[in-house]
Amino acid sequence: MIQTRKKKIINDPVYGFVNIPSELIYDLIQHPWFQRLRRISQLGLSSMVYPGANHNRFSHALGAMHLMSTAMEALRTKGHKIPKEDREAAMMAILLHDIGHGPFSHALEHSILHGVHHEDLSLLMMEKLNEQFDGVLKKAIKIFTNTYKVPFFHQLVSSQLDMDRLDYLQRDCFFTGVIEGSIGTDRIIRMLDIVDNQIVVEEKGIYSIENFLTARRLMYWQVYLHKTAVAAEEVLVQLIRRARDLQDQGVSLMATPALSLFLREQVRLKDFVNDDQYLDNYTALDDSDIFASVKWWRNHEDRVISTLSNMLLNRDVYKIKFSDTPFTQQEIDQVKTLLVEKGYQEEELPYFCVTGVVSNAAYVPYSESINIKRKDGSVVDIAQASDLPNVEALSKIVKKYYLCYPKIISL
Amino acid sequence: MIQTRKKKIINDPVYGFVNIPSELIYDLIQHPWFQRLRRISQLGLSSMVYPGANHNRFSHALGAMHLMSTAMEALRTKGHKIPKEDREAAMMAILLHDIGHGPFSHALEHSILHGVHHEDLSLLMMEKLNEQFDGVLKKAIKIFTNTYKVPFFHQLVSSQLDMDRLDYLQRDCFFTGVIEGSIGTDRIIRMLDIVDNQIVVEEKGIYSIENFLTARRLMYWQVYLHKTAVAAEEVLVQLIRRARDLQDQGVSLMATPALSLFLREQVRLKDFVNDDQYLDNYTALDDSDIFASVKWWRNHEDRVISTLSNMLLNRDVYKIKFSDTPFTQQEIDQVKTLLVEKGYQEEELPYFCVTGVVSNAAYVPYSESINIKRKDGSVVDIAQASDLPNVEALSKIVKKYYLCYPKIISL
Amino acid sequence: MIQTRKKKIINDPVYGFVNIPSELIYDLIQHPWFQRLRRISQLGLSSMVYPGANHNRFSHALGAMHLMSTAMEALRTKGHKIPKEDREAAMMAILLHDIGHGPFSHALEHSILHGVHHEDLSLLMMEKLNEQFDGVLKKAIKIFTNTYKVPFFHQLVSSQLDMDRLDYLQRDCFFTGVIEGSIGTDRIIRMLDIVDNQIVVEEKGIYSIENFLTARRLMYWQVYLHKTAVAAEEVLVQLIRRARDLQDQGVSLMATPALSLFLREQVRLKDFVNDDQYLDNYTALDDSDIFASVKWWRNHEDRVISTLSNMLLNRDVYKIKFSDTPFTQQEIDQVKTLLVEKGYQEEELPYFCVTGVVSNAAYVPYSESINIKRKDGSVVDIAQASDLPNVEALSKIVKKYYLCYPKIISL
Amino acid sequence: MIQTRKKKIINDPVYGFVNIPSELIYDLIQHPWFQRLRRISQLGLSSMVYPGANHNRFSHALGAMHLMSTAMEALRTKGHKIPKEDREAAMMAILLHDIGHGPFSHALEHSILHGVHHEDLSLLMMEKLNEQFDGVLKKAIKIFTNTYKVPFFHQLVSSQLDMDRLDYLQRDCFFTGVIEGSIGTDRIIRMLDIVDNQIVVEEKGIYSIENFLTARRLMYWQVYLHKTAVAAEEVLVQLIRRARDLQDQGVSLMATPALSLFLREQVRLKDFVNDDQYLDNYTALDDSDIFASVKWWRNHEDRVISTLSNMLLNRDVYKIKFSDTPFTQQEIDQVKTLLVEKGYQEEELPYFCVTGVVSNAAYVPYSESINIKRKDGSVVDIAQASDLPNVEALSKIVKKYYLCYPKIISL
Repeated sequence: MIQTRKKKIINDPVYGFVNIPSELIYDLIQHPWFQRLRRISQLGLSSMVYPGANHNRFSHALGAMHLMSTAMEALRTKGHKIPKEDREAAMMAILLHDIGHGPFSHALEHSILHGVHHEDLSLLMMEKLNEQFDGVLKKAIKIFTNTYKVPFFHQLVSSQLDMDRLDYLQRDCFFTGVIEGSIGTDRIIRMLDIVDNQIVVEEKGIYSIENFLTARRLMYWQVYLHKTAVAAEEVLVQLIRRARDLQDQGVSLMATPALSLFLREQVRLKDFVNDDQYLDNYTALDDSDIFASVKWWRNHEDRVISTLSNMLLNRDVYKIKFSDTPFTQQEIDQVKTLLVEKGYQEEELPYFCVTGVVSNAAYVPYSESINIKRKDGSVVDIAQASDLPNVEALSKIVKKYYLCYPKIISL
Repeated sequence: MIQTRKKKIINDPVYGFVNIPSELIYDLIQHPWFQRLRRISQLGLSSMVYPGANHNRFSHALGAMHLMSTAMEALRTKGHKIPKEDREAAMMAILLHDIGHGPFSHALEHSILHGVHHEDLSLLMMEKLNEQFDGVLKKAIKIFTNTYKVPFFHQLVSSQLDMDRLDYLQRDCFFTGVIEGSIGTDRIIRMLDIVDNQIVVEEKGIYSIENFLTARRLMYWQVYLHKTAVAAEEVLVQLIRRARDLQDQGVSLMATPALSLFLREQVRLKDFVNDDQYLDNYTALDDSDIFASVKWWRNHEDRVISTLSNMLLNRDVYKIKFSDTPFTQQEIDQVKTLLVEKGYQEEELPYFCVTGVVSNAAYVPYSESINIKRKDGSVVDIAQASDLPNVEALSKIVKKYYLCYPKIISL
Repeated sequence: MIQTRKKKIINDPVYGFVNIPSELIYDLIQHPWFQRLRRISQLGLSSMVYPGANHNRFSHALGAMHLMSTAMEALRTKGHKIPKEDREAAMMAILLHDIGHGPFSHALEHSILHGVHHEDLSLLMMEKLNEQFDGVLKKAIKIFTNTYKVPFFHQLVSSQLDMDRLDYLQRDCFFTGVIEGSIGTDRIIRMLDIVDNQIVVEEKGIYSIENFLTARRLMYWQVYLHKTAVAAEEVLVQLIRRARDLQDQGVSLMATPALSLFLREQVRLKDFVNDDQYLDNYTALDDSDIFASVKWWRNHEDRVISTLSNMLLNRDVYKIKFSDTPFTQQEIDQVKTLLVEKGYQEEELPYFCVTGVVSNAAYVPYSESINIKRKDGSVVDIAQASDLPNVEALSKIVKKYYLCYPKIISL
Repeated sequence: MIQTRKKKIINDPVYGFVNIPSELIYDLIQHPWFQRLRRISQLGLSSMVYPGANHNRFSHALGAMHLMSTAMEALRTKGHKIPKEDREAAMMAILLHDIGHGPFSHALEHSILHGVHHEDLSLLMMEKLNEQFDGVLKKAIKIFTNTYKVPFFHQLVSSQLDMDRLDYLQRDCFFTGVIEGSIGTDRIIRMLDIVDNQIVVEEKGIYSIENFLTARRLMYWQVYLHKTAVAAEEVLVQLIRRARDLQDQGVSLMATPALSLFLREQVRLKDFVNDDQYLDNYTALDDSDIFASVKWWRNHEDRVISTLSNMLLNRDVYKIKFSDTPFTQQEIDQVKTLLVEKGYQEEELPYFCVTGVVSNAAYVPYSESINIKRKDGSVVDIAQASDLPNVEALSKIVKKYYLCYPKIISL
């Protein structure tokens, strides 16, 4: 029987085993676009700081699907009827939610494309897949875009407490070895319930939620926004910028074909819609294009691109300073003056004295709160339910400004 | 060589292996008073809720000593010279810090003795051991009592961030299976430093500390002050109270010899000092005395003690209600009325309608703050160093009032 | 709804969470006989060597039930229809398979009773429970006694590869910290299948089985038959023997009531059947009776019992020598001579110069082999299926002879 | 102080933290050749089966160095004096032992170069580094080549029980999630001792060694020689072969510069010695060159290379059959006939009907045995010391023949 043949179990070091729940989902996983996620690292260049963190978007997507399946089961145990078709749609929605990611996930999100979020591409690709698979993704797309009549599915895919976050926190903590980032995924999922078609958390789960919020905070400062990782990703961003600039100036520059296209053109979302070549090339693009191209560039005669390439390959990245306030022009000028003293050319300075800002916004993007279901059945915001005034604080957006410059100078 | 023979390694599931660092410490561990800790459960009756949590004070004491050894090593790596003798003293101080605990650790602390804290007995026993071991514990006692000239040792034994807490949080989280209580013990210890003879934490450790504080909070509501555990321990407290009352009334009551003594008399700290029989009996007392005696009592003709005994043995404990404010006389009277309706006698009511209060005070007992060492070398309170206004909140003392009554009635 | 109220989840550090699958099973767990297992340590006195190993028969029984539930689910996924009633019966059979264990599990199995195996008592107690619960255990008893028409249920309860072994190996490895004893419980269970109503293992699971057999072997020499644990349990056995002898001689000896009964009389299986007082007392007996009684004995005027009692309490047990062949009379006499030189009396010698034999037979008791299902559907013995001639070897019974004597003498 | 600045700690999910023990070792780690190992996956294409297994040679090398440091410490605790210089040399030898690995570690070892083992290149690169670092690697090279006067260092680097194996087994088991492959690294290392300058294992460690041997066996059949992984790596091997063949035929074929060189020429060890360009290019080669080139090839007009490229990228690899004996010409011809029926050209057949042989020889390459130190001080081979006749069996070399063909045909 075909269906049985395709029912597979995948070993996952985080959960032990992940079941592929249906033939359809098996076919989606086998699709080249999904297989491409094997070559896209989950945490950009964080592996430069945490050498175990080489996990990819492929296993994250499978893990999130696994948690979705667990959540469905937990909700059913509480007496909620969820049709099989809805469950499968929710699993497909979370499985594909990151399929639009490009090389190094977030790191190059604003460098390779022009104003295109990876979610936009995920949606576009889901729609294309929906065509290829005769409409089976229709409901999954509704869930993804929050247009399905029952909103809790979307909340499990994308909200303050979605299966995406639960998986990546636990997975990133596993692969980095930052064990104190552990969250009680199992306990949290067992505490979920549905009231008025909205996801709520049982009151006794409140400490697990607080712990989840703190763990998230720990992870972004300790891992996601770690100084060296930010500096390494800034090297990457400047590299792509320089490559694009050289291209614009007509300087000859080898690169893999897919990367070449995106360096030559400023591709916008509408381009993807209008011309299939963009998606064809985008789905051919992964981490290996960057490293392969950078290895060409490291011997390039342009000193900027060769220097940055070697910095990346040899993990010899910028020095970086963090600050709670933006760096002043004076501070920036001081760095530039020192660089000029060291022999840097004026036109090179923008690549070697770089400012930027990181924030936990990527990790706290939703204004909707987490709702707690009291024992009397009433539903309140977690900030009210907790006896702790820090839930708000844990969810607030923090910004850190940074200034990068070569190690050769010291401030 | 004798010393080598006594250098032992002990398997510990939390840390893998624990080294016994010296012959002297080996001899302390072999002492009957220390071996008694094998028969005293670390978490009182929490194993009634978390069946894996049968770990004892013995392995906690070894674990805390192991962390102390790790901390000494970490501080030495940072260039602090710590004489061997001081290191050994600090290890002995933490090894023995809980040696005065009685049956079920905290659960019976105020029932068996009269106004004697376990720390008082730990000190008394350390002093007796010091005599037996020809004064080798002199410095350890100074460290324990915070009278040693170098204060950081005491801080490692007993403060907001001591090796005691680090071990019990990690250990309790391991044995209960509440994995989200995981703390980064290793990372925290590597972040410790000394400034002006005081323990400080390097600035980059701040998120680990926040996580430690949240994990602690999670653990006390999820584990230490879990409703069923509190109810079970209240059964135990009422049992001992009833046994003492019956004893006072001249009712014959079997019990193990050591327990009998402490039921007959209201033993105070000065009694221990003045008459050796008290310490002799106290050091013969452990969890088994309670269970063995309770099994006698379960067939006793006194209905109160037999009922409570069966409740304990069969894990059929009180119902319990928690509240942020004290229960009113009216609420209490309502329970009593219902009990009388069920056939309870007036004089039985105090054992079956019980109020009390729990608080996290046992886990947040110190007013001293955790000090952070900034990169510029300055030292500030963590509440100032953190960009999060919740550190205070995490450290505040919370009280919960409770009301216990038999399952037979429902409110 | 009552049923929902009783559907509980229990935290288990080995598996995370264990579901109580039905109201009936919940009621069995609540029964005083089952609750007693909380006070019976799983590994006898192994905690004297592995201080984390304080886990009890209660959590082992729950864990084995959890694995049974997982196995049922795995078999159903492969298309085997298993009626709900059968599944529940299998879970009850494994839940109660160890309910007849006495204090310290195996350690005193032949000391407290006379020729009664704990399985006999488990069966007796299941039959009594069946009466109390109106016949609901009928099928579970058939499964336990291998008289149910479908044999694979019994194989999952008791065979070379049953859920009992899978749980205790994994659990003991967790609590001792001997991590290399890890077995792939999850993988093994997913490899199970049914052919002709017999349990078989899919061919690709063969390496997991080999690993399981080696892990088992490692665990019994490293843990179950560890020298110090054997020596400690021999102290316990001699203690009970001496207590019984003193009793016989009319020497007054305090003990808890349940223990007293079994010291006074040589209770056989038929006594349990004929007179309820034996079961009443047996179900009141647990580890605490031993420790409480031993604490009385340690000050007894009989030097043998007081010495042995202190040895046990202070973990100051016999020296022990292992040998592949029985000790000669000459070797034994040599020890006795040395003891006499040290002032031991002739009549004391049998308690202080003790020989015995341990074997892995308790862990390899079944002659039936593990059957492997080849890809072509044929079923063969694992010894044939494996390309390794060691499967037989791994399953053979090994004996080690030992000689115990006080530390005061050296050979 | 510079030295302190370079004393770094690296987070490793397997061991928690790895210390960089000296400034010199820090500088070696920072060298571009060592940083290249970040881009070489430890397990070739095993991640196609175990999606978590994306770990690289970089973290393996650090891990092995960490274990070497632990082993040195364990041996010193037993009273062996090991000069600091020797310890550092041993750590450098193990750190660099794999530096010569090419893309996908073992997978392409015989495709990219011609008769050059990665150890040869490791040695060559160590010698070059020795020149760059003014001779500091002299002793490390002696240890690596087993020409150092004290042989036990080499045994820790390369033998049946070396730090290389201990790390990779534990690491691969962690990242694949095959937890039953766990070995007691810590325990084994603590059991090591030195007799006559040779590494021996204390007798009581014998069960840990048996477990290690079984775990190794499990891992190679379950992971290293997993069918799908073998099939995937065979696709890769055929891809490189086809690319080389096309190159030879003068067909134009894009590839990254480093890969192009090794496709164009049959590079031998002497070429590396005689002409620096080969090493320059080899040290620029990593996994990304393969993927980047394969993405060019997937649209190539040559059907063989485009088909194989898509098979690799989309994880749509050969079917594979294993057999204990070589496949007969008849069996092979049958496949070829079926392929021709499906439209394959005669000249394409060698790329789509592929036979080969795998063996555990890579994992059991050494004839030297593991020596056990008996309690009486005598040293014997483990096969004699164990009461189990399977140690030989566990160490024997097993071969499996395989036949690969496209999924389109079924036998």
